[in-house]
Amino acid sequence: MLIREKLVEGFKRGIVVPEGLIAHGRGECFDYLIGESTQPFALRAIEAAVAALLLAKHPVISVNGNTAALVPREVVELAEEVNAKIEVNLFYRTREREEAIAEWLRMHGAREVLGVGEDALATIPELFSERRRVSPRGILVADVVLVPLEDGDRTEALRRMGKTVIAIDLNPLSRTARAANITIVDNVVRAMPLMVEKARELKKKTREELARILESYDNNRVLQEALLHIYKRLQELASSKLTLDL
Amino acid sequence: MLIREKLVEGFKRGIVVPEGLIAHGRGECFDYLIGESTQPFALRAIEAAVAALLLAKHPVISVNGNTAALVPREVVELAEEVNAKIEVNLFYRTREREEAIAEWLRMHGAREVLGVGEDALATIPELFSERRRVSPRGILVADVVLVPLEDGDRTEALRRMGKTVIAIDLNPLSRTARAANITIVDNVVRAMPLMVEKARELKKKTREELARILESYDNNRVLQEALLHIYKRLQELASSKLTLDL
Repeated sequence: MLIREKLVEGFKRGIVVPEGLIAHGRGECFDYLIGESTQPFALRAIEAAVAALLLAKHPVISVNGNTAALVPREVVELAEEVNAKIEVNLFYRTREREEAIAEWLRMHGAREVLGVGEDALATIPELFSERRRVSPRGILVADVVLVPLEDGDRTEALRRMGKTVIAIDLNPLSRTARAANITIVDNVVRAMPLMVEKARELKKKTREELARILESYDNNRVLQEALLHIYKRLQELASSKLTLDL
Repeated sequence: MLIREKLVEGFKRGIVVPEGLIAHGRGECFDYLIGESTQPFALRAIEAAVAALLLAKHPVISVNGNTAALVPREVVELAEEVNAKIEVNLFYRTREREEAIAEWLRMHGAREVLGVGEDALATIPELFSERRRVSPRGILVADVVLVPLEDGDRTEALRRMGKTVIAIDLNPLSRTARAANITIVDNVVRAMPLMVEKARELKKKTREELARILESYDNNRVLQEALLHIYKRLQELASSKLTLDL
């Protein structure tokens, strides 16, 4: 419930758009099916994601309205830990919204926020509308991009540009989840604090150890396990008495 | 996509609240799992629901913001066919919103809309906040209430008052779905036109025939079949290769 209040507040601040509220509701449904807790498949993806960010030359955290509203402090903390840039990237881009989000992130400790106004002058191929605009110092040159709550088109476009894409998505069947290199099937409000923690732990490892984590990671297996988990929960529920006695 | 536009328009008209957009998103996700089409278990529930409405002494259609935004004409048509009253009932009740919804329903042909302003002077037990307010000519005296897109607390409270509750809910596991007497697990935009059609057909039947439809209806089985349907769809999906090649 607190999560919804954060979003509605973000909405009133001009950070979140109505479409973002609908998208959030869609996520809530999958979270409910997952059991509203971080599962082993998500923990494995978080570990691989953090290893990829630590090994990256130019890691970038791409921030949209919902992400900014829900986990502003964790975005800043993770960026610090893995030495990543923060870039605003919006499906419904307006100058006011970009600035409101950047300001909100600065209020939570961000020193630099890319992708605002004139800074978003580069474009990424195959995408139309304002979503294609990126910062030449951020996503354009990034080798690893963390895209919490991203749409499928953009995830695919980033992949085609040769980038390693890390997604956080509660729906293991979404195009985003299926197109990303590493998919964290978990709620962003649970996953982001765990990523910060994991970054502090993995920073002490050698590059070789981090590379081994990445090599042994299998995203297809992680997605299958996520589905299987949902599937088993449904199976249990379907065999029980469903109607309530009143 | 058209559905979302209707909701966003309803939002701009003051009919839909931000929380309604989130709730809609949750429904969208379940609709995706169901396959975005009306399934046999929903058709059976629709038939029983229409029979119950036709047999009722005081049937009422309870309308909230999302319902008004999505199916205003169908609400009016169904009310005509089964001789039901239309009552506005909101989780987030304000006078402006009540009036905006009543006006919107009148624009779609409603002759009388209960539950607005002074009319909502009765209260139903066990519920707090503005949700408890109902019309003494409507929900208070109703024997059968259709609550498309209702929350669990209110559904349970209506049941405890001895009313027959018909819910339309895409989530077969929601408290609403489980507490209702008849649960139509389908999208309200598909279910409501089918209910209007079914009402025109069943009006020709005798009360005995309608009573037989009601008696043979089993809501627990309907909910189980809905879950089983989702479960089978997930099973098919889980066994395929999930990651996309890019």
